[in-house]
Amino acid sequence: MFRNQYDSDVTVWSPQGRLHQVEYAVEAMKQGSATVGIKSETHAVIVALKVDDFFFSITLFFQRAQNELSSHQKKIYEIDTHSGVSIAGLLSDGRILARFLQTECSSWRWDYKQPVPIKKLAESMQLKLQANTQYYGRRPFGVGILIAGYDKDGAHIIQTDPSAEVVSMHGTSIGARSQSARTYLERNVDKFEKSSPEELIVHALLALRDTLPAEENLSAQNTSIGIVGKDSPFNLLDDAQVAVHLNQVSTHPRTTAGAQGGAEPMQM
Amino acid sequence: MFRNQYDSDVTVWSPQGRLHQVEYAVEAMKQGSATVGIKSETHAVIVALKVDDFFFSITLFFQRAQNELSSHQKKIYEIDTHSGVSIAGLLSDGRILARFLQTECSSWRWDYKQPVPIKKLAESMQLKLQANTQYYGRRPFGVGILIAGYDKDGAHIIQTDPSAEVVSMHGTSIGARSQSARTYLERNVDKFEKSSPEELIVHALLALRDTLPAEENLSAQNTSIGIVGKDSPFNLLDDAQVAVHLNQVSTHPRTTAGAQGGAEPMQM
Amino acid sequence: MFRNQYDSDVTVWSPQGRLHQVEYAVEAMKQGSATVGIKSETHAVIVALKVDDFFFSITLFFQRAQNELSSHQKKIYEIDTHSGVSIAGLLSDGRILARFLQTECSSWRWDYKQPVPIKKLAESMQLKLQANTQYYGRRPFGVGILIAGYDKDGAHIIQTDPSAEVVSMHGTSIGARSQSARTYLERNVDKFEKSSPEELIVHALLALRDTLPAEENLSAQNTSIGIVGKDSPFNLLDDAQVAVHLNQVSTHPRTTAGAQGGAEPMQM
Amino acid sequence: MFRNQYDSDVTVWSPQGRLHQVEYAVEAMKQGSATVGIKSETHAVIVALKVDDFFFSITLFFQRAQNELSSHQKKIYEIDTHSGVSIAGLLSDGRILARFLQTECSSWRWDYKQPVPIKKLAESMQLKLQANTQYYGRRPFGVGILIAGYDKDGAHIIQTDPSAEVVSMHGTSIGARSQSARTYLERNVDKFEKSSPEELIVHALLALRDTLPAEENLSAQNTSIGIVGKDSPFNLLDDAQVAVHLNQVSTHPRTTAGAQGGAEPMQM
Amino acid sequence: MFRNQYDSDVTVWSPQGRLHQVEYAVEAMKQGSATVGIKSETHAVIVALKVDDFFFSITLFFQRAQNELSSHQKKIYEIDTHSGVSIAGLLSDGRILARFLQTECSSWRWDYKQPVPIKKLAESMQLKLQANTQYYGRRPFGVGILIAGYDKDGAHIIQTDPSAEVVSMHGTSIGARSQSARTYLERNVDKFEKSSPEELIVHALLALRDTLPAEENLSAQNTSIGIVGKDSPFNLLDDAQVAVHLNQVSTHPRTTAGAQGGAEPMQM
Amino acid sequence: MFRNQYDSDVTVWSPQGRLHQVEYAVEAMKQGSATVGIKSETHAVIVALKVDDFFFSITLFFQRAQNELSSHQKKIYEIDTHSGVSIAGLLSDGRILARFLQTECSSWRWDYKQPVPIKKLAESMQLKLQANTQYYGRRPFGVGILIAGYDKDGAHIIQTDPSAEVVSMHGTSIGARSQSARTYLERNVDKFEKSSPEELIVHALLALRDTLPAEENLSAQNTSIGIVGKDSPFNLLDDAQVAVHLNQVSTHPRTTAGAQGGAEPMQM
Amino acid sequence: MFRNQYDSDVTVWSPQGRLHQVEYAVEAMKQGSATVGIKSETHAVIVALKVDDFFFSITLFFQRAQNELSSHQKKIYEIDTHSGVSIAGLLSDGRILARFLQTECSSWRWDYKQPVPIKKLAESMQLKLQANTQYYGRRPFGVGILIAGYDKDGAHIIQTDPSAEVVSMHGTSIGARSQSARTYLERNVDKFEKSSPEELIVHALLALRDTLPAEENLSAQNTSIGIVGKDSPFNLLDDAQVAVHLNQVSTHPRTTAGAQGGAEPMQM
Repeated sequence: MFRNQYDSDVTVWSPQGRLHQVEYAVEAMKQGSATVGIKSETHAVIVALKVDDFFFSITLFFQRAQNELSSHQKKIYEIDTHSGVSIAGLLSDGRILARFLQTECSSWRWDYKQPVPIKKLAESMQLKLQANTQYYGRRPFGVGILIAGYDKDGAHIIQTDPSAEVVSMHGTSIGARSQSARTYLERNVDKFEKSSPEELIVHALLALRDTLPAEENLSAQNTSIGIVGKDSPFNLLDDAQVAVHLNQVSTHPRTTAGAQGGAEPMQM
Repeated sequence: MFRNQYDSDVTVWSPQGRLHQVEYAVEAMKQGSATVGIKSETHAVIVALKVDDFFFSITLFFQRAQNELSSHQKKIYEIDTHSGVSIAGLLSDGRILARFLQTECSSWRWDYKQPVPIKKLAESMQLKLQANTQYYGRRPFGVGILIAGYDKDGAHIIQTDPSAEVVSMHGTSIGARSQSARTYLERNVDKFEKSSPEELIVHALLALRDTLPAEENLSAQNTSIGIVGKDSPFNLLDDAQVAVHLNQVSTHPRTTAGAQGGAEPMQM
Repeated sequence: MFRNQYDSDVTVWSPQGRLHQVEYAVEAMKQGSATVGIKSETHAVIVALKVDDFFFSITLFFQRAQNELSSHQKKIYEIDTHSGVSIAGLLSDGRILARFLQTECSSWRWDYKQPVPIKKLAESMQLKLQANTQYYGRRPFGVGILIAGYDKDGAHIIQTDPSAEVVSMHGTSIGARSQSARTYLERNVDKFEKSSPEELIVHALLALRDTLPAEENLSAQNTSIGIVGKDSPFNLLDDAQVAVHLNQVSTHPRTTAGAQGGAEPMQM
Repeated sequence: MFRNQYDSDVTVWSPQGRLHQVEYAVEAMKQGSATVGIKSETHAVIVALKVDDFFFSITLFFQRAQNELSSHQKKIYEIDTHSGVSIAGLLSDGRILARFLQTECSSWRWDYKQPVPIKKLAESMQLKLQANTQYYGRRPFGVGILIAGYDKDGAHIIQTDPSAEVVSMHGTSIGARSQSARTYLERNVDKFEKSSPEELIVHALLALRDTLPAEENLSAQNTSIGIVGKDSPFNLLDDAQVAVHLNQVSTHPRTTAGAQGGAEPMQM
Repeated sequence: MFRNQYDSDVTVWSPQGRLHQVEYAVEAMKQGSATVGIKSETHAVIVALKVDDFFFSITLFFQRAQNELSSHQKKIYEIDTHSGVSIAGLLSDGRILARFLQTECSSWRWDYKQPVPIKKLAESMQLKLQANTQYYGRRPFGVGILIAGYDKDGAHIIQTDPSAEVVSMHGTSIGARSQSARTYLERNVDKFEKSSPEELIVHALLALRDTLPAEENLSAQNTSIGIVGKDSPFNLLDDAQVAVHLNQVSTHPRTTAGAQGGAEPMQM
Repeated sequence: MFRNQYDSDVTVWSPQGRLHQVEYAVEAMKQGSATVGIKSETHAVIVALKVDDFFFSITLFFQRAQNELSSHQKKIYEIDTHSGVSIAGLLSDGRILARFLQTECSSWRWDYKQPVPIKKLAESMQLKLQANTQYYGRRPFGVGILIAGYDKDGAHIIQTDPSAEVVSMHGTSIGARSQSARTYLERNVDKFEKSSPEELIVHALLALRDTLPAEENLSAQNTSIGIVGKDSPFNLLDDAQVAVHLNQVSTHPRTTAGAQGGAEPMQM
Repeated sequence: MFRNQYDSDVTVWSPQGRLHQVEYAVEAMKQGSATVGIKSETHAVIVALKVDDFFFSITLFFQRAQNELSSHQKKIYEIDTHSGVSIAGLLSDGRILARFLQTECSSWRWDYKQPVPIKKLAESMQLKLQANTQYYGRRPFGVGILIAGYDKDGAHIIQTDPSAEVVSMHGTSIGARSQSARTYLERNVDKFEKSSPEELIVHALLALRDTLPAEENLSAQNTSIGIVGKDSPFNLLDDAQVAVHLNQVSTHPRTTAGAQGGAEPMQM
């Protein structure tokens, strides 16, 4: 990516009508470990790799030890009983936004005695993200977020990015090498709407597996699964439950030549 | 466009009396997918391409998947029962402005128990846009908006741009390759005033089709249509209704050699 | 105009005791389409070209279509029953200032139950304009304004510019090629005081015509006329009325070799 | 004047202990048309050239027309019944300061039911001017002001400049080519104290005449005269009164070889 | 580490999607003397080297004298009866954060009459740290902190760093040459859960010893030990208690060839 | 004095631990005309040259005329009945500080019904001056001030400078060529304590005279004398009184070869 | 010390994890005249050189005269009856901090009717100092301070520096050439605890003497002594008392070859 004079301040347009700081924040999102979200008529599923390879590049010396020494590195958060989020990019930014959404949910509950409609949640998110792309003294959030939710309008997967794009999706993936996951999703998009919750989880895991290099694999240690749907509140599965679903996934041979797209792991 | 020293801050004039940051924001508008608005004596119509090719250039990796995976990418928003907007440029900026207009409408309803006159809405918009061209710490909005409305003064198409120009039009088009659409509009402007709503939609779609490269075409998937008029509140047509109108359009042979004007798709 | 290091901030003096940002804003005013104001003992007239050639240079692609597609591009605004303004330069700045004057007028009416004296209006304007030449974080307004008014002290033509100069004039012209108009005014200044309203309008139009290139002419489409005077509230003439006055103008042969002075149309 | 790195911000000292921005603002004052103030035991007189040659250099195209087309260009303002000011430099700055002094006067009258002592007025002015030489985000005022006043301590001529120097004078002149006027004043300073009001005006006009190039002369059109004194409130003479005094002046042959000192008219 | 243009302001993203100022603050953390934290089912232990080799590099001239002249240089602070922290990096930043945590604890006690859950404490810390990575006018904290705590959910070791990463760990080490300590921890992680408090302290000290150069050793003078657990409030051991534990450590031969990882002591 | 990169902002330290902006402000003080202060057991005297040669360099064109045309240029101000100040440097800064001290005095009188102790006055001054050396957006005051006062602790001469040094002195001199005055003071310091008020004034004038070039001399026109002491409120002597003391001074032959030290008059 | 691009703003980290502005402020501390503090079981003593050689370098022309002309230049301040401070570095910064501590003491007395614990005083100081190392718009304090105090926990010597390090010491010295003093302190540290107040003062003076060049010596004029302890409030000794202690010191031959460490006197 070429360098220029219009990329040092978020409030400045380049002569080509671009906001470079926003684009650079997107780079941070692309380097987070991948996450996948898909929905059926009745359920929404988000799955994520727990290994966060973004700040590993900053705090290099944690890299090897962490899987064994850390209790758990959360990539999926419950927001309310009817929604949860997964994060790709700068984790500390992601947590700030997750907490923002939690506050929005509890404010709505306080005011209206019911869960916030997912559409309203998406609108609040869009306002929050956009302000950091326009006003001086703040940087754009360096994180993409998938919101899985279920309300009276059905299941939702909402995708946000640092440019304040907030889009409703049938299925999507963001983060490192997520193009491979999206390729899987496009090929199978027609099957999602009528999938059972269990089938939906397997689809999501198969897409997520495609983001891994050939020599790595999903495991209960590096995989998080969250699901929400009709009559079932948001549930972040425990390791045993994750293992059950991974068993099913392992029966599907891995055919892709290797993960594509997204960003390569960052070099110091 | 040549580079200079007066383009890094919105509050600075160049020696030629220009505001470069405003001009660069106009570039962002020119790269949004095209939208067209026209009006008759009794109705106002806005049509838009759903594919937003601006931020695709930022979030490249979404580009191929989106049409199939996303539920819908809105380019047209209802503002009130008597008005709607279409957007060309930075979508997240456009949504902020759409929400601003929605708030203006509901404030007016609260105060006066009736819909806001479109002229008042245009004035509020002008104030909002101008402030971001004059004061430090904010960038101009990188988006153009067409407001379609109907009130006691009849039908309205209002065009706004990042320079805070807010103009009432018989017909207009903004966004990528919109010059081709405007050429169509100029040739047919005399027919609009007495057109039926259906004829008006066809005119708008024919103009919009002229913004597409020769190898692409309008479809229910990539086309949005909004209409408002006498005794008919603002209506964002569903896919089936869009398809009906596109059928009519397809009976008109496409004669232009190719789309002209506007900005070429941005190169990374 | 040579470049230097003292022109990037409105709050900075150059070693020669100049405020370059103010001078650059004056350039924006010079590139607006021309407007003329003159007064007799009993009336004040402002006339203006509707084509705004300043932002056309920014939003090039509107240029050809606008005259036919736009409903009307206002260059003259009523401020109160006893006053109106015409604008040369950055139209969105001009509208902000017109609205500011409207607010001043209605505040005065609220407080004193009578129209604001034009002199008080001019003082408010001077304060508003000067602040943007002295304090950090705002740019000077890029627009010149002519105020036509009538109060107990008689008729008034007030001229303002980006440097916060606010001067009472017998007659004046600002905007592109306005020197030609001022030449006409100087030659005929002695006739204004006793002119009838109709004669005053013809003088103003003749001066305005002199700002046009030889191959262009005034028309009901491109000309706005506002008049205010003793016992006649401010009136922005409609196209038919404008046509009547233009007929009279056309009986005066055009003798000037071509428009002079002001700024040449800006090159991109 | 040489260029350096310490002149771009008013709050920065140069290594030589100078405030360059203040010095540059003084340049603006030097380029304003000249004004002269002198006092006797009982009266204070200020005279000024109406032609403002500073912003003429900015708004060049007004230059020729103005004398004939403009009603009047004020250089002298009444502040209260016992005081008035004349201005040299950036007129819009001068008017802001004149209005500031008017407000100070009316505040004092409100609080104490009597005119403000001139000494208090000078102190307020000093505070106002100094702040703009010390704090960030404002530029120094680009104007010099002469205050003529009469109170229980007698007649006063107060001179202010952009550096916040506020000095009581027997006689003084500021503005373009004012050195010639000061030379006259120094030669005749002993005569002022006992002069009659009429004699005082003639002295002031003779000093002012010395600031003009040999080929120009004072006229009722380009000369303003203000006087205040014992038992006579501040009076800005009308053209007829000015003409009477100029007649007396014309009986004094002009002997100086040409105006000296101050700044040459600025070159674009 | 290479230099670039995106590292002078915390609010700016580099084209690679990195926040250089955050990375540089991590360098400050890496240069602090090492600290180690581990937990069993019932207890959490933090140990630290008292010698702070970071600001010694700033205030060089203190270096030799300090161990003998200073009473004690605290590296471990009690936060509440159920928690304590150890610090690696810029000590004055660390103390500010320790005091922040103390205030959080007492606020919670005031509101709820019980100790704050460690998880809530970690969330407050994350918010506090993240804000300094995103908003203008503050730098990121240059310190890493280990929180040892015990509450109804058991024992906790929380690790924070300047990027606002806040992670729950079984065992960890931060600061100069901490890679050697983490290597020890990884090899022995399985033994921690069932360790007695005494065994836990010995593990922590053995890991800490591995961060020392071969020619240095732990002593009661340079070693701090803090422990908290079930039915035992946070206790910062005195020198005699430290000596007892060090005796046990000395029975374990030192086998590592030398400390690895982390930062080398900074060169002036 | 050499140039470097650490002198453009008061809040920045140089690598050598210096504040260049403070040092440059000291330069302004050194270029003010000299002032001298000394005290006996019972009295404190300040004398000053009225010619301010600092801003003369800015407003060059006033230089010759001022002595004859200006009423008086104050360099010494009464602060309260028991104290006064003299100023060297930027006069407008000095007057701001003099007014600040006057306000401090009257606040104290209001609160305690007695004059403020000189020590308290000095502390207020120190706080005021220091803030402008540490916080962004203001420049240090470019002036040195001598405070002469008498209170229950006896007579005081307090010296302040732009670095916020506030020191109690037996005798001192600041301003242009003040080294010569200090040389005189050092030679005679033993005589001050028991001097009569008249002798004290003569000592001060002899020291002041030593700051003048050989060809200049003290006169009632260019010399100010202020004195305060036991049972005698602060008194700024009138011209006749000054002349009496100067007569005494003229009986002392001038022996110094020429003034030394301080700054040479600044070159444009 | 090498120059780089990360030292112009206190809020910026260098790539090596350093805060250059803090380090430069430490340089200012190193150039202040030396001060020494030591404590026994029952008493704390601070001694200091009155000659402040830091701002002498700024205000060079005071240098020679000051010792004879100034009444006294305080380097030691009483803070409360149980504590006092000595200062090394920028004196005006030091006085601001001394006043801050005095306010802290009186606030505590007001709230709790007893003297503030020295530990609390140190914590307040740490907060105050740290803020100026982290937030934009202020520079770090350029001063080191020794606090001598006595409370229910015994005698205290607290050392602070610009990096906000606040450490409790048995004995210490800061300022120019203070390494020589610390060398003395280290050699004799074992004797302090049981010393009588008189012995403690002699130790402190011997350490202070070692900071002087061989050709200079301590005298009642250049030496300040403060002491506080059990049943004896803080006492700043008068010249006679100082002389008595210096007599004792003179019986100890001076053996050091010359002062070491700290900064050399700064070169202009």
